[in-house]
Amino acid sequence: MSHPAPLTTLVETSLYGDDLVALEAFYHGVLGLPVVARDPERHLFLQVGPGQMLLLFRADTTLQPGDFPRHGTRGPGHAAFGIAADQRENWRAQLLQSGIAIEAELDWPRGGKSIYFRDPAGNSIELITPGVWGLPDGW
Amino acid sequence: MSHPAPLTTLVETSLYGDDLVALEAFYHGVLGLPVVARDPERHLFLQVGPGQMLLLFRADTTLQPGDFPRHGTRGPGHAAFGIAADQRENWRAQLLQSGIAIEAELDWPRGGKSIYFRDPAGNSIELITPGVWGLPDGW
Repeated sequence: MSHPAPLTTLVETSLYGDDLVALEAFYHGVLGLPVVARDPERHLFLQVGPGQMLLLFRADTTLQPGDFPRHGTRGPGHAAFGIAADQRENWRAQLLQSGIAIEAELDWPRGGKSIYFRDPAGNSIELITPGVWGLPDGW
Repeated sequence: MSHPAPLTTLVETSLYGDDLVALEAFYHGVLGLPVVARDPERHLFLQVGPGQMLLLFRADTTLQPGDFPRHGTRGPGHAAFGIAADQRENWRAQLLQSGIAIEAELDWPRGGKSIYFRDPAGNSIELITPGVWGLPDGW
């Protein structure tokens, strides 16, 4: 065999919550992510830019035996979206106008800044400006 | 205010597990992701390509009050990495050689293919070839 080429892309990120209607109002309505597919009993699939997906699942459903390997978590997960530095104020205003409380804001040692808030299921969502990680793409 | 520019990048994806040493052996040793930072009591941070991070956390630690908003889940999460179609056989061999059982393989309606397996914490990990979602970047 050849050693596989390095993994360079996380295509699917999953978070869990019971109320997919409320989650759609948040991820589509407030955060603006396009909906790719929905099944109110099971999932809500959203597109993030040209190459990624955010998958919301009801763990009650996806933990049952079925066509796919079982998965499903309880408790607050965490994910972070990248934003341009000059969009931070726009996002702060968008959250405020949508009634989403900002839980914390942090400045990182390398220079990036974070805004933390919660989705309707309690997951910890973060917006980060470039510089937090020092990655080649800027984040 | 201006409406914020669309979110186009999920920079941080989180999964949870108690044994971060075993998780490093898996995500670094088997999947080949570079380690960016580790704290054996709290986290293991891995880089995925030029612009993404996979964050592994011990929920026992991150659910405690501290410097960051609390988060942490129980139960099997799910994430998927993209691979080129011609790397599928190399990855199958890499998993086999590493003693990682393949739980399922699926062919999707649009033409992409998936390999499913588990990390040491039981999270459902998937490798997908282009075509599964029909995204502009190919996935």
